[in-house]
Formats: sequence, C-alpha cells, structure tokens
Amino acid sequence: MITVLTGGTGGAKFVDGLRRTVPSEEITAIVNTGDDFEWWGLHISPDLDSITYVLASLLSKERGWGVQSDTFFCLQTMAGMAQPAWFQIGDRDLAVHVLRSQLIRQGKTLTGATAQIAVGLKIPARILPMSDFPVATMVTTPDGEISFQEYFVHRRYRDPVRAVRFAGAGRATPAPGVIEAISETSAVLIAPSNPVTSIGPILAVPGIREALRQTSAPVVAISPIVGGAAVSGPAGALMATQGLAVSIAGVAKAYEDFLDALVADQRDDAEAAKLERSGLRVHLTNTVMKTAEDKLALAKSAVVAASAIAPVVASIET
Amino acid sequence: MITVLTGGTGGAKFVDGLRRTVPSEEITAIVNTGDDFEWWGLHISPDLDSITYVLASLLSKERGWGVQSDTFFCLQTMAGMAQPAWFQIGDRDLAVHVLRSQLIRQGKTLTGATAQIAVGLKIPARILPMSDFPVATMVTTPDGEISFQEYFVHRRYRDPVRAVRFAGAGRATPAPGVIEAISETSAVLIAPSNPVTSIGPILAVPGIREALRQTSAPVVAISPIVGGAAVSGPAGALMATQGLAVSIAGVAKAYEDFLDALVADQRDDAEAAKLERSGLRVHLTNTVMKTAEDKLALAKSAVVAASAIAPVVASIET
Repeated sequence: MITVLTGGTGGAKFVDGLRRTVPSEEITAIVNTGDDFEWWGLHISPDLDSITYVLASLLSKERGWGVQSDTFFCLQTMAGMAQPAWFQIGDRDLAVHVLRSQLIRQGKTLTGATAQIAVGLKIPARILPMSDFPVATMVTTPDGEISFQEYFVHRRYRDPVRAVRFAGAGRATPAPGVIEAISETSAVLIAPSNPVTSIGPILAVPGIREALRQTSAPVVAISPIVGGAAVSGPAGALMATQGLAVSIAGVAKAYEDFLDALVADQRDDAEAAKLERSGLRVHLTNTVMKTAEDKLALAKSAVVAASAIAPVVASIET
Repeated sequence: MITVLTGGTGGAKFVDGLRRTVPSEEITAIVNTGDDFEWWGLHISPDLDSITYVLASLLSKERGWGVQSDTFFCLQTMAGMAQPAWFQIGDRDLAVHVLRSQLIRQGKTLTGATAQIAVGLKIPARILPMSDFPVATMVTTPDGEISFQEYFVHRRYRDPVRAVRFAGAGRATPAPGVIEAISETSAVLIAPSNPVTSIGPILAVPGIREALRQTSAPVVAISPIVGGAAVSGPAGALMATQGLAVSIAGVAKAYEDFLDALVADQRDDAEAAKLERSGLRVHLTNTVMKTAEDKLALAKSAVVAASAIAPVVASIET
C-alpha cells in the first residue's frame, strides 16, 4: 500500500504517474479539502475532483482540472442568466458536484460521498478527504480576507498575500481511515503540491502531523519548487509568506518534523548537497512533469526513494 | 392583460401561439406545479420550465420539453455513475434547475425564484407558479400510489389509473399575484392542457376556483380533447377516472362552474351543437397544433372567443 498526500494540479499529475507505477488498488490518496467551497448552491471539492478524475482516467490533460473534452453549456447558460461563471464547471464535471451535494444533503459524510462517487466511476484506488469537517483556506490580501478559490481562480493569485489560515482546522478531526492510511502503509508520499495551501491544510488537521511523525513507513516528499521557483501557481509567494525559503530547502523545512527523504530536481543539486550534509536523504531527478513519461518517471523515483529506506513494492521496474 | 392557466406540453404549445398573438408583456401564465419533484437533490418544476423556455424562445420544438438543441453530457455522466437517468435533463436545462434550487435554499419562494429566472432569461411575460406551497399530484395505480413524474415519464402512463389526488393542496394558498391575475385581467384562458393533472392541481388550490367563478373577465377554455380522444398524453384515461366523458363535453363539465366559452375542434361539431343548446358558447376551429401557424391560429381563436364576450385586445388581427 502507498499513501499519497495531495492537492492541486501538481498533485493530480503526480498521482497520474503513481497509478501507472503501482496498481491503483494499492493507492490511498489523502486529499486537501481546504479549497472546498459552495458554488451555485453545490458543494465543490476541487482537489477531490482532480484526484477522482485522474484515477478514473477522466482528467483533462490540457487544463489539468475538470473532465477531458468536457463541454460548458450549463456554465454558458448560467452566465446568460447573470450568474457567477468564473469557476468553470463543465457539463460532465457538474454531475459529480450535483451528486456529491445530493449525498451530503441526504446525510452522507464527505468521505462517504467521495467513496460513492469513486465506486460510480469504477475507481479502484481509495480517495479520502483529509477531514469530514469543513476547513476553509483563507488568504489575507490588502483588500481583506478571501477564500482560496476567490484568490486562486477568480483573482488569479495576483494579490499580495499577507497571511494564510485554515479556518475550522482547530475543530476538525481526520476523516475515517486517514490516520490508518498513514500508520499502516508501506510508504507515505507527499505529492509536489503547494506546501502551504495544498499540503498545509492537511497538516493543519489535528492528528495528521503527529501520525506522519510516528509512522514507521518512510515519508518522502517531492519538491514542487525547481530552481528556486514554483513549477506552477503561487507556491513560491505563499511559501515566502510563511517564512519558508522558496527553494527545496524551504520544502524540506515545511516537512522537517516527519520527512525521511526529498525528491528534488537535478537543477537543485547544490542546494540538495547542503540538505544531505544536514542529514536529509535527497534524490535528484527531473521533477517537471510535461509528458506522461515525466509523470511516470517521477512517481517511480518517489517509490524508489521510499524503497531505499524500507522495501515498498518489489515489482517496480526502476 | 391576458391570463392563461397552463401545464404540460399542450399548454406550452398554446402559450407559444399566444406570445405571437399578444405582446408577451401582457401575458400572465399561472402554471401547474403539481408535477414538481426532487431529482438529483434539485427542485424540478417541469411545467414552469416549459413555460419559461417557450417564453424565452428556448423550448425544444422537437421534444416539446427542455431546451432547443440541448446536450445531455451531465445526464450521461450521471447514468455512468449508476444514478437515475429516466428524467432527461439537458446541460442547458440543468442550469435552471440548479439556480432554482439554490435560490429556494437561500430562502426565496418558488414565485421569487421563477421571477429571477425569468429576468435572467429576459422574459417579458409574467410566470406565476399556482402556489408556493408544495402540492404533489399523486396517481394510484394497481401497484400503489406514485408521483406524477413516475407515472408519466418513468412508466410512460401505461398503468391503469384508479385515482388522482393533489397531496398538500388543502393546505396550499395561491401564489402571490395569482388571484389578482384572474380577477384583474381582460381574459382568462385555460390552455389545452390535461384538465385532470395539468389544470386540476391549479383548481385544487383553495381560492383559485372561486376567483375564476367571480372574475368579471371572460373565461375561455381550449379543449385538449379532439374527436373523443386526447391530442396527446393520458388526458383521456385520466378524465375517465374522474367520471368525466372523454369529449369536449367532459372538458366543459370539468370547468362548468366558471366557463364562459369553449374553443373546440371542428371535428367535434355535433358535440359542440349539443353544448351550445345547453347554453355554453363554443367556437369551432382547428385545435391540433402541428405547426407554428396552427399555434398562432389557435391562440387567436381563443382571444377572439374571449373578445366576443368582452373586448380583450383591440389590435388582434383576426
């Protein structure tokens, strides 16, 4: 079994490689839900959706979110009725939001709704929200505090960020299965997601960070920072707001209390050498995922890095 | 001002003719909501939708329901996830259901939600649900009592019907504006809708039947029965269950306490002569709406029939 903590488009790409590296049945994804928000009266879970779609072979490769070859006729109709349309929901994508919202209104937990959607899409992997409690990633900008989707999608992360908080995290508990998936697994991988707003909310749920510290499984993170900048998105700017260096050292720092090894890009070899001198295992490879081969190779590198600490999957071709 | 009581596909076709006969601004449609039901956790109002779409020039002419040239990708995705798919919601159509559901959950009445959707679709006519209270048309079959949509759409009205009731009607009140639209108007038209399950629920809302009896405006019904059978759908079978003759006489009987004139098909001239001898005004014309010209001509006939009792719209070309 391999457990992966993930969020965002980098996480979805990595999981795409991972499912081609190990059998999907052996993957448990623990997914950020700090981006969840209500839209058109529906419960939207952007990161759960991306992981669901990638594991169902449905994720749009062009966009990195939503369903491959989706259409946007409902969205266009909403826009025509003067409804908000900045969050782009495709017609196929909408089915998942409508079903999730219905299941939750019927009393199902987010975990239960996520599992039912996964069964409906014939996904053999296990997808777990980090928590069934609402946790909202909130971003303070000069104009005030806004939700993560407002910051990231609507305002295209152009605002300077003064602070990030995870509203509700203090009262949240890990979703059923999350602690077990960290404790009873062969390896825990931290996807190359934004450490602050994709992995950060997961770590903010009381109990998860402790489980990562205590697990006997190797914990391997893949750096989303390459050459001192984020591969995509606002990870760099957000790390800076948290006092983290925008470097693989900053990534290592974010996870320092539980990290066994870091997979970093070859371009960061100098920084990697420094980290290794401080005692962290660092595996250098290409971490920029442009092609299917890149994704596969990166996932294999991560599994190999974990296997170097404790045997993970003997059958991986390396 | 012209007020039309309507439901079903026959009603939508008639309103399509009416909006080409008189300015849309002068039309108030009082619409059956007995077919409303919850589907995928959304509030669906099939008859409100048909009238909304026809008045927005969006109604599918081929199907008689839903949006012209709509796609069904969300529905297909739902079906792929083993969700019920017998009620066919198109992707554009879905926008209206999602918006209505959101508005109602936010505390808007069905009247308010309907009005906001109409504004969004730039509809100049006024669309009123018969009531803001839930009224559910329930059909008793040999297999038990089922909702109207279950009977009509899912089971394609093949079951013998033993009884029809309008659950909740006793506690319902007319929606704001309904009584005024009947009392303060130039004419009330009863569309060629099913008298039992399209017009019946409207008449079952306490106060509406009384308003029709008391209005000084002429009340003119268009018969959905031609040559002793319904033009479409289960109107004949349903009328029989209510002890009504499946004929224009049965239609006249259903509305006898408030009807001033009946527009019937030329093929029913013998029956019409009998009704006229009993004191009812009957106008004979072609009532089968196959083309846009048919719809226009029938709507004009109905307005002319009303004008023969009291002047309605001086400018109608007849």
